[in-house]
Amino acid sequence: MSETELIVRYAETDMMKVVHHSVYPIWFEAGRTDFAEKLGYPYSKIEEDGIMMPLCKLECTFKVSARYGDTVIVKTFIRKLTPVRIELGYQIYKKGDNTLLTEGYTLHAWTNTDLKIINLKLVAPQIYTLFESNMIEE
Amino acid sequence: MSETELIVRYAETDMMKVVHHSVYPIWFEAGRTDFAEKLGYPYSKIEEDGIMMPLCKLECTFKVSARYGDTVIVKTFIRKLTPVRIELGYQIYKKGDNTLLTEGYTLHAWTNTDLKIINLKLVAPQIYTLFESNMIEE
Amino acid sequence: MSETELIVRYAETDMMKVVHHSVYPIWFEAGRTDFAEKLGYPYSKIEEDGIMMPLCKLECTFKVSARYGDTVIVKTFIRKLTPVRIELGYQIYKKGDNTLLTEGYTLHAWTNTDLKIINLKLVAPQIYTLFESNMIEE
Amino acid sequence: MSETELIVRYAETDMMKVVHHSVYPIWFEAGRTDFAEKLGYPYSKIEEDGIMMPLCKLECTFKVSARYGDTVIVKTFIRKLTPVRIELGYQIYKKGDNTLLTEGYTLHAWTNTDLKIINLKLVAPQIYTLFESNMIEE
Repeated sequence: MSETELIVRYAETDMMKVVHHSVYPIWFEAGRTDFAEKLGYPYSKIEEDGIMMPLCKLECTFKVSARYGDTVIVKTFIRKLTPVRIELGYQIYKKGDNTLLTEGYTLHAWTNTDLKIINLKLVAPQIYTLFESNMIEE
Repeated sequence: MSETELIVRYAETDMMKVVHHSVYPIWFEAGRTDFAEKLGYPYSKIEEDGIMMPLCKLECTFKVSARYGDTVIVKTFIRKLTPVRIELGYQIYKKGDNTLLTEGYTLHAWTNTDLKIINLKLVAPQIYTLFESNMIEE
Repeated sequence: MSETELIVRYAETDMMKVVHHSVYPIWFEAGRTDFAEKLGYPYSKIEEDGIMMPLCKLECTFKVSARYGDTVIVKTFIRKLTPVRIELGYQIYKKGDNTLLTEGYTLHAWTNTDLKIINLKLVAPQIYTLFESNMIEE
Repeated sequence: MSETELIVRYAETDMMKVVHHSVYPIWFEAGRTDFAEKLGYPYSKIEEDGIMMPLCKLECTFKVSARYGDTVIVKTFIRKLTPVRIELGYQIYKKGDNTLLTEGYTLHAWTNTDLKIINLKLVAPQIYTLFESNMIEE
């Protein structure tokens, strides 16, 4: 599990005066970038190794809206890991009063740079083991 | 059901050379803007009437990636309607070869401008009936 | 000169209830995509030829704000062309009452895929001549 | 002058494998949010006081592209201040090797919530004096 702090940007709001819903998937992504970074295997390094993690599915439940002036905390964790897929979970809290704003998950395939599915355990066992070890710790 | 044509924008791509997944919820939204417009009750008019449709839940399944140079077609339709909620479904196709790229749905609450839930059937029966009639036609 | 119609997206608004200023450069880009398309040499084809047009400079003057519910028209034209650079101008009008909302320009270098500057007149004279002819017509 | 650190988001890249140019104005904005925050008068508080700062003009010069994996530093400072306008300057550096990536400025009007121009020195002298004092220090 990693925790990532983000300051709401004015550009992220909409005319309802709250953060637009399309921003949360971007915050999820900032969360998983930070998650991999803290695990010691930055996603930019994963891509340099020729491994991509395109999204297969996204689900997001909105409870309370984030607003300009808020700082939010994205908690990112592994929900499921197989040699061909990874499912990451997210919870976004408002810093300060700790309200749960949004939660969701993303399902990713492990692919090569042509976006063809690979078996991560065979192609990059060091990455697979690293992610697996973090999941067990949770 | 409405069909909305959109041309992929360069800014919508990412370094995987495909449209970034956070763009699809924005295309869903462009789809439902067009849906309400074609129904004869533009969403900007709904908001002028003091009625908002904040998102409660979003689900999106990614099958094939859209790319710069593509034109896509967003099909938008009502999946469920109650006096307090509406669920809209979306299918995004690539124009030309008609490949299904992405599908998903959004669940919205009917609220007032303070984002408090309202009973649409009581508050704005003309809107409720209009949406209901379109659903029955499907 | 090309004219491109765009419908304002809800996601493009901010809490000031107008289109966020960072959206106009994206509309400029949609304008130049359409400009190249109408010229008969889509930008996706230019990139397939190994030629990129990274931005060197952007200037944008905001007069009147676009709002949700508006349709805007982007007028795109060539302001200057040399073998190593191109400067495109833009004027964005509100459809209907024809108010000028925003104007600006973008300066681009002609580069290869490694983003190294090239001489377009030597590397791809057919593209240079095509753009040059359009400029003269203005 | 304030310094604001930002981590490049994957969503901010485009198919040229660099950060899309429309992102820099958003980073400028994150810079001025932080600038006002550090000055002791957060922009969310300025808006609560009924004062807006809509953009009149934006200029941005791109020197070197930011990439995914980079952390950038936005330096924000006041270039000019009058009772009706403020001009902010920005320089964005790559953290680590300190390369200057982008520089630019934004010109803002001081307005009320109806976006009508106001004289800040009369309407909110405490804000005017605060910004003025920071400019003199530079």
